[in-house]
Amino acid sequence: MQILIINPNTTASMTAKIGASARSVANPGTEVTTVNPDKGPVSIEGFYDEAFAVPGLIEEIRKGEAQGYDGYIVACFDDPGLTAARTITDRPVVGICEAAIHMATLVALRLCIITTMQRSVAGAEELIRRYGVTDRCRMRWIEASVLDIETPGTDVADQLRSEVQKTVREDNAEAVLLGCAGMADLAGALTQEFGLPVIDGVAAAVKLAEAMIGLGLKTSKVGGYGAQLAKVYTGDFAKYQPGS
Amino acid sequence: MQILIINPNTTASMTAKIGASARSVANPGTEVTTVNPDKGPVSIEGFYDEAFAVPGLIEEIRKGEAQGYDGYIVACFDDPGLTAARTITDRPVVGICEAAIHMATLVALRLCIITTMQRSVAGAEELIRRYGVTDRCRMRWIEASVLDIETPGTDVADQLRSEVQKTVREDNAEAVLLGCAGMADLAGALTQEFGLPVIDGVAAAVKLAEAMIGLGLKTSKVGGYGAQLAKVYTGDFAKYQPGS
Amino acid sequence: MQILIINPNTTASMTAKIGASARSVANPGTEVTTVNPDKGPVSIEGFYDEAFAVPGLIEEIRKGEAQGYDGYIVACFDDPGLTAARTITDRPVVGICEAAIHMATLVALRLCIITTMQRSVAGAEELIRRYGVTDRCRMRWIEASVLDIETPGTDVADQLRSEVQKTVREDNAEAVLLGCAGMADLAGALTQEFGLPVIDGVAAAVKLAEAMIGLGLKTSKVGGYGAQLAKVYTGDFAKYQPGS
Amino acid sequence: MQILIINPNTTASMTAKIGASARSVANPGTEVTTVNPDKGPVSIEGFYDEAFAVPGLIEEIRKGEAQGYDGYIVACFDDPGLTAARTITDRPVVGICEAAIHMATLVALRLCIITTMQRSVAGAEELIRRYGVTDRCRMRWIEASVLDIETPGTDVADQLRSEVQKTVREDNAEAVLLGCAGMADLAGALTQEFGLPVIDGVAAAVKLAEAMIGLGLKTSKVGGYGAQLAKVYTGDFAKYQPGS
Amino acid sequence: MQILIINPNTTASMTAKIGASARSVANPGTEVTTVNPDKGPVSIEGFYDEAFAVPGLIEEIRKGEAQGYDGYIVACFDDPGLTAARTITDRPVVGICEAAIHMATLVALRLCIITTMQRSVAGAEELIRRYGVTDRCRMRWIEASVLDIETPGTDVADQLRSEVQKTVREDNAEAVLLGCAGMADLAGALTQEFGLPVIDGVAAAVKLAEAMIGLGLKTSKVGGYGAQLAKVYTGDFAKYQPGS
Amino acid sequence: MQILIINPNTTASMTAKIGASARSVANPGTEVTTVNPDKGPVSIEGFYDEAFAVPGLIEEIRKGEAQGYDGYIVACFDDPGLTAARTITDRPVVGICEAAIHMATLVALRLCIITTMQRSVAGAEELIRRYGVTDRCRMRWIEASVLDIETPGTDVADQLRSEVQKTVREDNAEAVLLGCAGMADLAGALTQEFGLPVIDGVAAAVKLAEAMIGLGLKTSKVGGYGAQLAKVYTGDFAKYQPGS
Repeated sequence: MQILIINPNTTASMTAKIGASARSVANPGTEVTTVNPDKGPVSIEGFYDEAFAVPGLIEEIRKGEAQGYDGYIVACFDDPGLTAARTITDRPVVGICEAAIHMATLVALRLCIITTMQRSVAGAEELIRRYGVTDRCRMRWIEASVLDIETPGTDVADQLRSEVQKTVREDNAEAVLLGCAGMADLAGALTQEFGLPVIDGVAAAVKLAEAMIGLGLKTSKVGGYGAQLAKVYTGDFAKYQPGS
Repeated sequence: MQILIINPNTTASMTAKIGASARSVANPGTEVTTVNPDKGPVSIEGFYDEAFAVPGLIEEIRKGEAQGYDGYIVACFDDPGLTAARTITDRPVVGICEAAIHMATLVALRLCIITTMQRSVAGAEELIRRYGVTDRCRMRWIEASVLDIETPGTDVADQLRSEVQKTVREDNAEAVLLGCAGMADLAGALTQEFGLPVIDGVAAAVKLAEAMIGLGLKTSKVGGYGAQLAKVYTGDFAKYQPGS
Repeated sequence: MQILIINPNTTASMTAKIGASARSVANPGTEVTTVNPDKGPVSIEGFYDEAFAVPGLIEEIRKGEAQGYDGYIVACFDDPGLTAARTITDRPVVGICEAAIHMATLVALRLCIITTMQRSVAGAEELIRRYGVTDRCRMRWIEASVLDIETPGTDVADQLRSEVQKTVREDNAEAVLLGCAGMADLAGALTQEFGLPVIDGVAAAVKLAEAMIGLGLKTSKVGGYGAQLAKVYTGDFAKYQPGS
Repeated sequence: MQILIINPNTTASMTAKIGASARSVANPGTEVTTVNPDKGPVSIEGFYDEAFAVPGLIEEIRKGEAQGYDGYIVACFDDPGLTAARTITDRPVVGICEAAIHMATLVALRLCIITTMQRSVAGAEELIRRYGVTDRCRMRWIEASVLDIETPGTDVADQLRSEVQKTVREDNAEAVLLGCAGMADLAGALTQEFGLPVIDGVAAAVKLAEAMIGLGLKTSKVGGYGAQLAKVYTGDFAKYQPGS
Repeated sequence: MQILIINPNTTASMTAKIGASARSVANPGTEVTTVNPDKGPVSIEGFYDEAFAVPGLIEEIRKGEAQGYDGYIVACFDDPGLTAARTITDRPVVGICEAAIHMATLVALRLCIITTMQRSVAGAEELIRRYGVTDRCRMRWIEASVLDIETPGTDVADQLRSEVQKTVREDNAEAVLLGCAGMADLAGALTQEFGLPVIDGVAAAVKLAEAMIGLGLKTSKVGGYGAQLAKVYTGDFAKYQPGS
Repeated sequence: MQILIINPNTTASMTAKIGASARSVANPGTEVTTVNPDKGPVSIEGFYDEAFAVPGLIEEIRKGEAQGYDGYIVACFDDPGLTAARTITDRPVVGICEAAIHMATLVALRLCIITTMQRSVAGAEELIRRYGVTDRCRMRWIEASVLDIETPGTDVADQLRSEVQKTVREDNAEAVLLGCAGMADLAGALTQEFGLPVIDGVAAAVKLAEAMIGLGLKTSKVGGYGAQLAKVYTGDFAKYQPGS
């Protein structure tokens, strides 16, 4: 089974970290490949970055289709481009936010997502609504840029620790979701320390993708995820034209 | 990896069919065991049957704990006893309705559950609400008892076919969920015939359980799924007393 | 008019207290009988206890049917077994959580349920969702076991008092619902002290049951509460078989 | 126990019919008085009529307060003026739509309101939303004015019969609510004929009001239903000034 | 273009302030007229005041219709009488709460309404629900009567300032809505000081009404806002009879 | 006042038609400019097309910022790129779907969007959810591609007519929203013919944008729409780097 994980930002060190997290949970028979686009933002922190991460993401999935991958993971907690990606392949495409939420609801009633910055809260709440957990999922945040999280020596882990503690006491949270692919390596230690599920979306998505592929589940081609209609794309984007 | 599937009704032929469906999708390294309680209803078709299926279900999970299973599946589309079961083990416990819904939302925007009888609709809608898909999931039904579905020569397959057709045309459904564990063997053929995902909850649950076990995900013991408090159970049920 | 109140746990002292609360509000023409099963948990504090309280509860209602009661009350704030109970009688069956919520919405816009323990919050929130008051009902909690509440000399009343104060100030609550049948005797004093409705579910349910019986209202036998289909129950539970 | 029922329109024949329906279910110890304002619309069929029914309704409740009634019922299915009425008394004030809905959810999972005219549907849906049953309550309609319903020899009963049949078959409705106080006398026959609860809001409200009064439940004076602040009302409405 | 703004309370100084706020944003070609009824409450602070503000409001709109206004604004943040008003004209009728909310959602994801008193919160939450922003709108409050706000030398501005600060920090609010027409003159300064949109509903409604009139948009006469059916109104209210 | 309307597809004839619709409702003092990107899809019919329409859209808004426009309209009914666009300007950015919905809720209680193709329904429902009208908005569809709508001699108008008729009769719709910018020229005739508001999103957005600009309303820079953080964009997209 071959899974392609696309880190939709262009920071190779984060791609590597994502790959490590993914491989640490992948089945023996699963071959995980990680890539990132060569175009677009070095980190995704808001709607604008998302918009420019999507074309590169799509391009990587199109390349993946040519190479015959069995499934895809979009490794950014904003789940950018997920719906578009699903129109170009019938193979499973899994976002790490949705993966974390699905897994979490199977082991806990009340959830809390801890995201990187206050400014990311409102955007993440749109996802919470889309995934149907508004009533049971709180948002909390630290203050650290995505690239800070990559940098050794910051207090990111301490900030996370403090928010986990608060959400258990004040919000009755029963599981915590780490709101950034870059936090993947902290999930294990926090789970240990606090004795409750602290979920990394990358790992969750790898296991979900394996499950879907193993099940032979394909993206529906009836309705919203149907194959894109043939049409002309002009200018710089002609190369992305459906069918091209 | 050892997964115990409990058919919470007492009909062994259905347990066997569930086992066949489960094994057909299980990973090579997964050992699937199927059981059904020796007490309770021969089929589960409503709230009353559910109530008397739960103690036997719990008993099987308690036996499973003694034997060291890695995870459990409750193989009835009403997801009976799921919350209770989660309090007695930190191993994943997956219901087949929730499994089917989670999987379906990863490949389709609009869903339809086809259940066995009109009288089951209102109950199933409670689950739809709990799982957060009220806005995107329709219910349809055929008219066949759970044991009819087990019986060769009925028109169950034809009735299902007719409802699948209607839900695609009239409800814009993009994926169909088979609302009874006994329909497991029909998912493949319907998927083929209609060219859209027709999901059997048993198979979906096996793959989700494998995913959760592989991820090392444990049921949260903080909050609603916390270990049952020690206390006395009297009479016939003394043997189910927490800690006994 | 004869109403049977089932305390679904096996603690007779709590059954007695429930009876006292019920009789203090019952109409002169209402004969209130209280029972508790002889099997099952001594207190209900979570999903597991609920599961083992239901068969005994059902048994008491079946006995009640043989004796011709006009209606039934399930006297535990988790409303366990309510849906199952409704399938075996067309007489009204009222839960104390739902009774408290219905009554409260008739006299207040914003509600607060004060439950016994933090671990009960997530479960109670499922009921809030089912009864359609998610947007207007907050949860608070003290830390006391159900049996503590039965014990003289604890600080339960003080803890409740403190939470009532907080919910009025911080949550804009206009009515308070006592989240445990064992708190029934405190409703009057708290109502007095704080000058807002503090509702005991037992008393609320008695009055609602009287209302429904007086109205001649029967549980619908069309759909989800329809009479259980005839079928075999095996083993220990054969005696609960529909029609038996 | 003295209950004042206000028919908020000025049609005395409808007031009489409401009174008959109310008395047919009232407890022996309940004295039911019915009134209607001497000002305002002869029937209430939309937002405009509602607006001019409310002052007369309030006036009747204020008179009632002077006479010491124990509780009030607003006998129009649009529940006009309910929130205003609750600010001028701490006695229970019950609307017939809310009463019917509360009662119905205690005996059925899925509901259908049959209203008088298509143009009333959107307004009634606002109430459905307010009472938290959007997900479980359908609207249907006949085409008859409120005064038609009062007139012998119309086909109102036949139209209702036809909609009850349709809602059971097509909407899975388990209980039907008659969407106009003027339909009160048809509830019994329809219940008989169709074998499911067909609920008249007037009767439901009488029993709920008795229940609340018997319970000693008062409208909360904390928050939105708090006593109106003292202030000047000018012109024609000076007589309605709080405290006047 | 001629817009009639009705301040539904009878305090002329507030009407004047509303007019000033309205004219400061109106287009050059827009002629704004402000009126208040000569009957009813001097301020609107709850459901009771609302009920007695509506007839006067309707009367002013009926007079407006005779004079040929192009649109109407109801200048009280409780949006009283909005639905009734829409049945008597096909010209746009805009409430200032709904106007503020619509405008706010176009420039911000998370909102906060700051209202005058804690007792107004529950009522305003009904509007939040009706306008579909429950998930994204918080309520805060100061403690000041509507007429206090009119009085120079109070600490209303300071209280507002303090709540704006808190909502940005604690609630992640991105825009603030001033919950009383009397606060209109403070919006500009607060916007400046806090660097986020602080929206006055009066100004928002003027611009929305101009937009609707410019678009030729008429209130739908199909369904709930359809012209009131002809019928008799008795007593004091005969003059409000539809068609009179 | 200068408004820039961006047709996010690359079909100039549609841009022209949008411009005509916009100018037909713009205020005399409003200068409307229309553009379309030189890169991307010739029509937007699904998530994939959307993804590749956004960069060109952003580019046009960035050019617009350099030229000092007062506000922007995104003229595609899927509201693509709206959130991203709001991060690069504090000037109002209005989508035509949201504009149509906001306007419609001011004149009608129940809405219906008629979209171009069945496959567009599920995507549009995501918008309906985001804009808070799930409970009051139905979807219907014809079967015509976006470019068909541009082509004279098709039966698009007849198909629309038929769906308007059905939605009024069967769905109780009170206002209709045309679900494609290309249908702009049909709104007037359909409004005439059916006597209810048939809303073109382009015209609605022009008037809303004028309203917001006139009000001095700016997009909040606190939270989700805050200015994009400075960072490196690599490859083809370096030119879109924030600050570049």
